[in-house]
Amino acid sequence: MTAEPIPPVPLTLDGSAILHQMFRVRWPAWNAVAAVERQAMVEDAAHVLTDMEQADTSAVFSQLGHKGDLMLVHFRPSFDELNAVELRLAQLKLLEFLEPSSSYVSTVELGLYEASVRLYTALHERGLKPYTPDWDEAVAAERERQRQAMAARLAPAIPARRYLCFYPMDKKRGEVRNWYHVPIAERQKMMREHGLVGRRYAGRVNQIISGSVGFDDWEWGVDLFADDPQVFKQLVYEMRFDEASAVYGLFGTFHLGLRVAAADLGALLGGRLPAFSRSPA
Amino acid sequence: MTAEPIPPVPLTLDGSAILHQMFRVRWPAWNAVAAVERQAMVEDAAHVLTDMEQADTSAVFSQLGHKGDLMLVHFRPSFDELNAVELRLAQLKLLEFLEPSSSYVSTVELGLYEASVRLYTALHERGLKPYTPDWDEAVAAERERQRQAMAARLAPAIPARRYLCFYPMDKKRGEVRNWYHVPIAERQKMMREHGLVGRRYAGRVNQIISGSVGFDDWEWGVDLFADDPQVFKQLVYEMRFDEASAVYGLFGTFHLGLRVAAADLGALLGGRLPAFSRSPA
Amino acid sequence: MTAEPIPPVPLTLDGSAILHQMFRVRWPAWNAVAAVERQAMVEDAAHVLTDMEQADTSAVFSQLGHKGDLMLVHFRPSFDELNAVELRLAQLKLLEFLEPSSSYVSTVELGLYEASVRLYTALHERGLKPYTPDWDEAVAAERERQRQAMAARLAPAIPARRYLCFYPMDKKRGEVRNWYHVPIAERQKMMREHGLVGRRYAGRVNQIISGSVGFDDWEWGVDLFADDPQVFKQLVYEMRFDEASAVYGLFGTFHLGLRVAAADLGALLGGRLPAFSRSPA
Amino acid sequence: MTAEPIPPVPLTLDGSAILHQMFRVRWPAWNAVAAVERQAMVEDAAHVLTDMEQADTSAVFSQLGHKGDLMLVHFRPSFDELNAVELRLAQLKLLEFLEPSSSYVSTVELGLYEASVRLYTALHERGLKPYTPDWDEAVAAERERQRQAMAARLAPAIPARRYLCFYPMDKKRGEVRNWYHVPIAERQKMMREHGLVGRRYAGRVNQIISGSVGFDDWEWGVDLFADDPQVFKQLVYEMRFDEASAVYGLFGTFHLGLRVAAADLGALLGGRLPAFSRSPA
Amino acid sequence: MTAEPIPPVPLTLDGSAILHQMFRVRWPAWNAVAAVERQAMVEDAAHVLTDMEQADTSAVFSQLGHKGDLMLVHFRPSFDELNAVELRLAQLKLLEFLEPSSSYVSTVELGLYEASVRLYTALHERGLKPYTPDWDEAVAAERERQRQAMAARLAPAIPARRYLCFYPMDKKRGEVRNWYHVPIAERQKMMREHGLVGRRYAGRVNQIISGSVGFDDWEWGVDLFADDPQVFKQLVYEMRFDEASAVYGLFGTFHLGLRVAAADLGALLGGRLPAFSRSPA
Repeated sequence: MTAEPIPPVPLTLDGSAILHQMFRVRWPAWNAVAAVERQAMVEDAAHVLTDMEQADTSAVFSQLGHKGDLMLVHFRPSFDELNAVELRLAQLKLLEFLEPSSSYVSTVELGLYEASVRLYTALHERGLKPYTPDWDEAVAAERERQRQAMAARLAPAIPARRYLCFYPMDKKRGEVRNWYHVPIAERQKMMREHGLVGRRYAGRVNQIISGSVGFDDWEWGVDLFADDPQVFKQLVYEMRFDEASAVYGLFGTFHLGLRVAAADLGALLGGRLPAFSRSPA
Repeated sequence: MTAEPIPPVPLTLDGSAILHQMFRVRWPAWNAVAAVERQAMVEDAAHVLTDMEQADTSAVFSQLGHKGDLMLVHFRPSFDELNAVELRLAQLKLLEFLEPSSSYVSTVELGLYEASVRLYTALHERGLKPYTPDWDEAVAAERERQRQAMAARLAPAIPARRYLCFYPMDKKRGEVRNWYHVPIAERQKMMREHGLVGRRYAGRVNQIISGSVGFDDWEWGVDLFADDPQVFKQLVYEMRFDEASAVYGLFGTFHLGLRVAAADLGALLGGRLPAFSRSPA
Repeated sequence: MTAEPIPPVPLTLDGSAILHQMFRVRWPAWNAVAAVERQAMVEDAAHVLTDMEQADTSAVFSQLGHKGDLMLVHFRPSFDELNAVELRLAQLKLLEFLEPSSSYVSTVELGLYEASVRLYTALHERGLKPYTPDWDEAVAAERERQRQAMAARLAPAIPARRYLCFYPMDKKRGEVRNWYHVPIAERQKMMREHGLVGRRYAGRVNQIISGSVGFDDWEWGVDLFADDPQVFKQLVYEMRFDEASAVYGLFGTFHLGLRVAAADLGALLGGRLPAFSRSPA
Repeated sequence: MTAEPIPPVPLTLDGSAILHQMFRVRWPAWNAVAAVERQAMVEDAAHVLTDMEQADTSAVFSQLGHKGDLMLVHFRPSFDELNAVELRLAQLKLLEFLEPSSSYVSTVELGLYEASVRLYTALHERGLKPYTPDWDEAVAAERERQRQAMAARLAPAIPARRYLCFYPMDKKRGEVRNWYHVPIAERQKMMREHGLVGRRYAGRVNQIISGSVGFDDWEWGVDLFADDPQVFKQLVYEMRFDEASAVYGLFGTFHLGLRVAAADLGALLGGRLPAFSRSPA
Repeated sequence: MTAEPIPPVPLTLDGSAILHQMFRVRWPAWNAVAAVERQAMVEDAAHVLTDMEQADTSAVFSQLGHKGDLMLVHFRPSFDELNAVELRLAQLKLLEFLEPSSSYVSTVELGLYEASVRLYTALHERGLKPYTPDWDEAVAAERERQRQAMAARLAPAIPARRYLCFYPMDKKRGEVRNWYHVPIAERQKMMREHGLVGRRYAGRVNQIISGSVGFDDWEWGVDLFADDPQVFKQLVYEMRFDEASAVYGLFGTFHLGLRVAAADLGALLGGRLPAFSRSPA
C-alpha cells in the first residue's frame, strides 16, 4: 500500500449535515388523551414541522414495522443547526408520546474517485510528491473547482417521493478482504461499476449518500427515495452483485418510510395513513 | 465475476407486501382489568381481526416462548395498506396490553433462477448484450409472461394450517465463501437441489418466501405452515445439509406460532388455547 | 458432498416438547405486598405447579445470578400442551411479580448416527437410491423400530437432581470448518468419541438433548442434571476438547438452577433456599 | 489431536463458589426518600453485609461508569450458599433502590498444566492407557495430593485491596486458531510463559482465577486486586502480548471497582466515596 | 514472537484518569416541571459543573442523535476523584431527569514506541537480558525521564473547542491479522506512519489518547477536539487508509458533542443551543 506512488485516500466533498430521527409512538398513552388536547399538540407540532419542510430541509415519514412509527429527516447547513432542531422538537408537548428508537448523524458526501485518480496521476507525472505544498495547493484548487461545480448536489433538497429507504453501511476490513487495502485504481474501477448499476435506475430513484466516519457508528448512510418501493429491493439486490457491494459492503439496519406532509400529522396520529401531496391542505 | 457473459442477477417476481407483528401480552395489567371491560376490548379487536382474516389476508397466532405471545401476519397488495393495518390496530384499546416485541417487512418473492439462466443464455447466443434496449425488452417480456403464469402464487392466501414457523435469512458474503460471487449457473444448480429437498415435503408444508432486501434487516423471510410442527424441524434440518444452506445460509430469530381464529381471541386472552378451525363460532 | 452415495442427513427421533421459562422476581414489589396476600398467591401458584410436577413433567429451579431468579422446565407431549401451560401460568396472580427474562423451545431428540450410517450403507449396497419408494420404506421401518426401542427415552421424566445446567448450542458453519459439509461417516466418528466422554460421567449426570432447528434460535438445547454441580464444569470442559465440540461447537447462554419442590415456593419467595426432596412437606 | 498418546484435558482443582453482583443505584428514587428511612435501610444492609465481610468472604465495591454503581463479590463453599446470599440480600429494603445490571457465577480454579503433563507422561511411560482403572486411580491420587497442597488457595479470602478489576474470558476456537486443538504440551508452554508475566507483578496484584464452563457464559472469570489501579492496565496490556492471550484470549466486559467497607455504605449512598480501611468505624 | 531478542511490549506513560458520561434528558418529565423548580435545579447543577470546568478538568457537551443528549467529560488525577465526581453529580436533583446511556473509563496514555525500540535495542546491544535488575533499572530511568519531559501532556486540560468526537477502539487479534503478534519494530513503523497523518492536522484538531485495557471494554479511547467538525471525518477517514488502522483498527460507538459552557446549561435544557465561549455570562 505504502509502495503506491499516489495517496490511497480519494477526495470527497462534504455538504449538508443530516439527522435521521426515528420514534415509536406511545399509542396507548396518546389515545388516552382527550381529543381537544391531542389536537392542540398536533397543531403545535405540525406548525413547527411544516415550517421546517417548506424549503425541503425536513420531512416526515410513517415508518413500517416495530422499529419506529415516525421518522423525521433533517438536512441543515451545520451540526449546530441540526442540534437546534433536535432541541426545538424536544420541547414539543407531542414529544411526550414519541420515544426515540434510533437516529443517524452524517453529512452529504460526494466521492471523487475518478477526479482523484486523474489528479493524483497527473501530479505524480509532474514529479510532485504527496503532501508537499505544491501538491496540496493543486489538490485544494481541484477540490474547490469540484465544490463549485457540484454546489447544488452538496446542499440537496429532500426529494418529494412517497417512499424512503435508509440504511447505514461500511466497507469491509476483513482479514483477507479489506477495502482500505485495495489500490485506489481498483477501488475506482469498482465504484464506477457500482455507479453504472445506479445509473440504470435514474429517474426511478433518488440516491443521497452521506458520510459518517467520525460522526456515527457506520461509515456511510444511504437514502433512497422512490415513488415505487419495489425499486428499493430491485436496486439494492442488483447492487449486491457488483464487486464493491458483494465483497466489501456491510449493511446496518434498514428503515422503510412513507412520506407524509407535516400538515397531515393529525390524520397519521389519528390512525389513518394520509396520501402524500406536496401541498397538503 | 465481471467476466461472465451474462448478468449475475437472477430475475425475481415481487408480489404481496407482508408484515409480521409480534407482541408480548402485558398479562398482569390485562388480568387486572374488569371482565366486562376486557370483553369489550376483545370483541372490538376480534371484530377488526375477523374482518381482516376473511380473505385469508391476516392471521392470528399464539406464540411459544418469551419472544412474544401474539403474532399477527398480514398479506396486502401494498406497503400503504400494510401501514394502514398497523395504524388501524394501534387504535385498538387492546393494544394498551400488547407490547410490540418484533416485526418483519417483506414482499412475496418468486425466484426465477431456471428461467433467468435459460433466457440470459439464449439472449447471449443471439448476440445481445446485457442492458441494451433489445436485451431489456426481451427480459421485460419474459418477466411479464412469468408474472401472468404465477399470478396466484404472487398474491397467496395465508395457508389455513395450525402451525407457523417464521424466520429471516441471508446468504453469506464471507471472505472466502460469498454467495454473490458464485457464478449464476452454480447458484442455479444449488437452488435446484435446495428445491428438491422442499419438494419431498410437498403436501406436508406450505412455504412462502418473501424478499426483504431494502425493506428490513435480512435478505429474505421464510414462512412455513404445517399441521404437524415436527415437520419444521425435519425440513429445516434436512435443508441445512444442502450446499445453498450449509455453506451460504445465515439464519435469524425463529418464531413459532399456533394459529388461532380471530374470533377465539377472547379465549386466548383468557388463558386457554383454542383449537383452530376455519369457521370459528 | 453431493458426490456421497448416501444422504448426509442422519436420522433423528423426536420426542416430548420442552419449554424452559426464566423469570426475574420483582423483589421490591413482591416484598411490598402484605404477607397474607403473598401467601394466597404462593399457595395458588404452588398448587398449580405441584400438580404439574407430579408426573415429573414440570420442575421449579432457583436460578443463580442476574439472568433470572426462577426457572421452570416443562416436558409435554405437544407444543399445544406447552402453550396451554404458558397460558395457564400467565393467569396466576404471582406472575405479576415474575418478569420473563428468557425461554427456550425444543423437542427431545435422539440422534441416530450409528444406525443411519449402518442403514444407509446397507441400502446403498443393496443398490437402492436415496429417496426412492423402497429406500423411504426401509428408512421408515428402521425409524419405527428405533422409536419403539427408545420409547422411554423419547418421553423422559425430569430427573430428580438438585442442579440443572441448561444451554443452547449450534454446530459451526464457518468458511473453513463447516459441520454440515463434513461427510456423515466422519461426523458419526466424532459423535461417537463425543459420546464416549459422556459415558465416563454415567451415573453422575443425566443428559437430555433436545432439537430446536425450526423452533428456536439455536440448533440444540442441552439439559444436564446432577447432584454435584462441579460435574457440569468437568463434563463440559472435558467435552470441549473432543473434536465435535472443540472445532464445531458454538455455545449460547448458560443457565444454572437449583431444584426446589413446587410446594416450597413460599420459602423461596420468602428469601430462603429450601433443600430439595422429592416429597416435600 | 486424537493421535496424542495422553489426554488433552489438563487437571484442574475446583474451590470456592463465587458470585459477582453488579447493581445500578436508582439515585433519584433513593434521594427522594426521607433521611431517617434511608438511614434505617442503610443500617439494615450494612449490618448484613458487615457480617458477610467479617471472614473476607464478601466485599463491597463502588463501581466506576454507567455499568453499575455497586459491585458485591461473594466467595462461598457452595452454590447453595451463594444462592442463599442472593435470596437474603433480595429481602433487604435497600434492594428496592438497586437494579441488578450484571452478575457472574464461577468457582475458584487452579489449573495444573505442569502437573498434568508430568503425570500423564509418566503414566504413559508406565504403559497405562488413559481412562483405565489404573490410570484413573493414579490421576485421582495426584489430584488429591494437589488439593491438599493447595487447600488454602482453593478457599481464598477476598484480598483487602482498594481496587478490583473483574472480567470474564474465553480461549478462542477459531477456524484456524483453536486453543482446544493445540497439543497439551504446547498449551502448557504457553501457560508457563503467561504465568511468568504474572509473576513479575507479584506483590503488586492478587489474581484469582475462577472457572465458569457450564456455569456462566464465558469459560473463566479473572479477579485482579491491587492498591494501585494502574497496575491492572500494565499487567493486562503486557499479558496481551504473550501467545496464550495474544492469539487465544477473548475478553468480555471489564468491571472496575473501589473497595468500600460495608460499614461505610451510608457514606457511599450519601454521595461521598469513603476511604477503605480494614476496620471501619 | 518469543524469538525476538527484545520485549514486544512498548513502554507507555499513564496520566490523568478520564470519565466520559453520556445521558439522555427525560424531556417530557423535565418539561412538566414548574419553571421555578427547573431554574433551581439548573442553577444547582450549573454551579457544581462550573466549579468543575474552572480548571478545564470537566466539560459539558450537547450530544447529537438519540445516543444521548448530554455528555460530560472529566479529567482527574485518580479514579477515586472520578468516582467522587460521579457520586457528587448523582446527588443533583437534575439527575432525576438525566438517564445514563453510556460511559467510558480510561487514563491518558502516551505511547513510546520510538523510545522503547531505541532503548530496548541499546540495552540488548549492551548484552542486557529483559527483566533482569539492570534492564529494569534502565527502563525505569528512561520511563522517569520521559515522564518528566511529558508531564504537561500527561495531565492535559480539556481543549476549549466547540466540537468533540469520542470513540473507543481495539487493535485486531484475528486469526490471520493479529496486532499483538506483529514484531515491535513493524508496529513502531506503522505507528509512525499513523502519526504522520495526524501531524498533517496539527492546529486543526487536538487529539487525546487514553488507555483502557483493564478498565473498560475496549483497549483505547480517542478524544478529538476541533472548531470545525468536518475535520473529524477527514482525519478519521484518512487514517483509515494507514496500515495500523486499515488492517488492525476496530472501532466502537462514535459520540459527537457540541461544547456548551456549564453556565449555559439552563439555555440548553430550555431547548436552545448556546454558542460556546470560554467565559460565559
